[in-house]
Amino acid sequence: MTRNASGRPRQASEPPVIAVSCGEPAGIGPDIGLMLAAQPAARRGVRMVLVGDAAMLARRARRLRLAFDPVMIPAGTRPRSSLSLLHVPLARRERPGTLDRANAGYVLAVLDAVLAGCVGGMFDAMVTAPVHKGVINDAGMPFSGHTEYLAEKTGTAQVVMLLVGGKPILRVALATTHLPLRAVADAIVAPRLTRSIEILAHDLRSKFGIARPRILVAGLNPHAGESGHMGREEIDVIIPVLKRMRRRGFLLEGPLPADTLFTPGVLAGADAVLAMYHDQGLPVLKFASFGHGINLTLGLPVIRTSVDHGTALDLAGSLAKLRGADPGSLAGAFRLAADLARRAGVATPRAVSERSR
Amino acid sequence: MTRNASGRPRQASEPPVIAVSCGEPAGIGPDIGLMLAAQPAARRGVRMVLVGDAAMLARRARRLRLAFDPVMIPAGTRPRSSLSLLHVPLARRERPGTLDRANAGYVLAVLDAVLAGCVGGMFDAMVTAPVHKGVINDAGMPFSGHTEYLAEKTGTAQVVMLLVGGKPILRVALATTHLPLRAVADAIVAPRLTRSIEILAHDLRSKFGIARPRILVAGLNPHAGESGHMGREEIDVIIPVLKRMRRRGFLLEGPLPADTLFTPGVLAGADAVLAMYHDQGLPVLKFASFGHGINLTLGLPVIRTSVDHGTALDLAGSLAKLRGADPGSLAGAFRLAADLARRAGVATPRAVSERSR
Repeated sequence: MTRNASGRPRQASEPPVIAVSCGEPAGIGPDIGLMLAAQPAARRGVRMVLVGDAAMLARRARRLRLAFDPVMIPAGTRPRSSLSLLHVPLARRERPGTLDRANAGYVLAVLDAVLAGCVGGMFDAMVTAPVHKGVINDAGMPFSGHTEYLAEKTGTAQVVMLLVGGKPILRVALATTHLPLRAVADAIVAPRLTRSIEILAHDLRSKFGIARPRILVAGLNPHAGESGHMGREEIDVIIPVLKRMRRRGFLLEGPLPADTLFTPGVLAGADAVLAMYHDQGLPVLKFASFGHGINLTLGLPVIRTSVDHGTALDLAGSLAKLRGADPGSLAGAFRLAADLARRAGVATPRAVSERSR
Repeated sequence: MTRNASGRPRQASEPPVIAVSCGEPAGIGPDIGLMLAAQPAARRGVRMVLVGDAAMLARRARRLRLAFDPVMIPAGTRPRSSLSLLHVPLARRERPGTLDRANAGYVLAVLDAVLAGCVGGMFDAMVTAPVHKGVINDAGMPFSGHTEYLAEKTGTAQVVMLLVGGKPILRVALATTHLPLRAVADAIVAPRLTRSIEILAHDLRSKFGIARPRILVAGLNPHAGESGHMGREEIDVIIPVLKRMRRRGFLLEGPLPADTLFTPGVLAGADAVLAMYHDQGLPVLKFASFGHGINLTLGLPVIRTSVDHGTALDLAGSLAKLRGADPGSLAGAFRLAADLARRAGVATPRAVSERSR
């Protein structure tokens, strides 16, 4: 027996239910979802639910010559079988490789269905396949990323994007995410940075079981500003925040120059890195994990992991191109979601709301 | 016999002369210079010249228990022995680990002496140990880095910083270098970006012997702006520059999202990466090279390589802390400088001025 955050006992014999949103239908999301579903070994000890259009998934399974025989479940029920499908209808039949604004609403409806299942306790965690931000925006729906969308839908004021991958394992969190580069410096402000560190430290404890997490914090500017000679954000914002938080007991090192931070001697013994922005932290993570990183959203009242690659429109639905391809990032995200769900215990509405505080 | 850029024949039997500037006297520059000088194997086939204060180097050699018996040479002469010393006097006796503004002028005088030797044909290439930008600036001398300083001193309108390291070898050039992050977006303008690519492609051909270099160009914004939804610099500046240059025959891919660029499949077959700014490109390079990257300044009329680490004040002059330390980055920079000097031929004032055009 394990216990979740609210102390409710969970029968270890009951497998966690992990929902996979199939993402952009013109991309490889449905393909990698089906490829993972076709690997019973990868799903061992877990109940998997694919969420997407049933006919679309059947068509893609035929294209990829994959067996796909899930149990159809209605919304609002907790799946009992090892492989289930929650149907969300497409607006227009998909063409693999070709984006269609008409299906932007479908992509969001799939996300909403998965989220509702997690919040309602039908699912224990969600894994998201890639969506295409551009086509959703082109369809007139403001959308800057899964992370931001899920935060808004769950009324979470702030979340933290954490990428996990590589050997030895690297955990890289971001203080800002999907902003144009020119907007980054102004987004590094004390309350937000403080909250990012709080969320990261909290979830390293609660989700990863690290009792006293040690976090390396990058500077914003090259060489961490070199004593103010290359930018003042370290002096004006980052250093004061770290000082205050160290007094509160947080184990923080920094601000460190990003390019010396990512060397073995500095990384040794640290549990996570907080980069100030997307392209300061993620290139190393992707390099270290050979593109197989796992994206985890911290601070949400639900467990959400994700692949860290894009829609790969050029590969979608192509048996020739996907033959022998390894749904490695999705499999990793699925495995991590299951591990976190087991540690957290069965998600019930009550447990969820307590975890969200 | 090899030929240099001006066609002047060079006797392959004459070893290239590589000058090492010892950098900040309170940092580890003198130490790693002496450690390298104490490894005859690392200097095989090369004439090494250390440039710095003679008494300071003698003191440091005693601290580190290293033999150091160079031939003293006057300025303006081409060294004939395998290990020489060009003396530049300190303003005040150094204290390892403690910066002293009084010696900022000395640090620049060392650089000037090395540069004069290269431009004058006494040295064939220069290798620079780390300096401390902060203390030079604090002394009232504007200095934003070796790269920028050498460009100004040689009247070079634009140079490109290239970092080399890792296995398989990674070459990462920067479109902008030591700017505060908030100034980066405005510095990505067409003429400068065009010139950066021209210099990079030119020097990959002339210095590395790559006949038709293939260059991966990163976007400025996360996800390379995702079709304008996360910044417009790709659409307004980068894509038009790449289009024009492809028509001129350059082999360019991009703008690519920085975090997918640095994965094995994308890197395979490319000769270099052009990152838009410091912390977009260098963390991966340092990670891949375990901190042993080599910094090469492209576009200068002289060959200049450098370590890519800082002054490491806490280690300076300490036998205990440096015992067993590997001057790996300096040795790599030294080796690369020698390779490039051999390929370029003997640097004479004439050859230098022709190469600089």
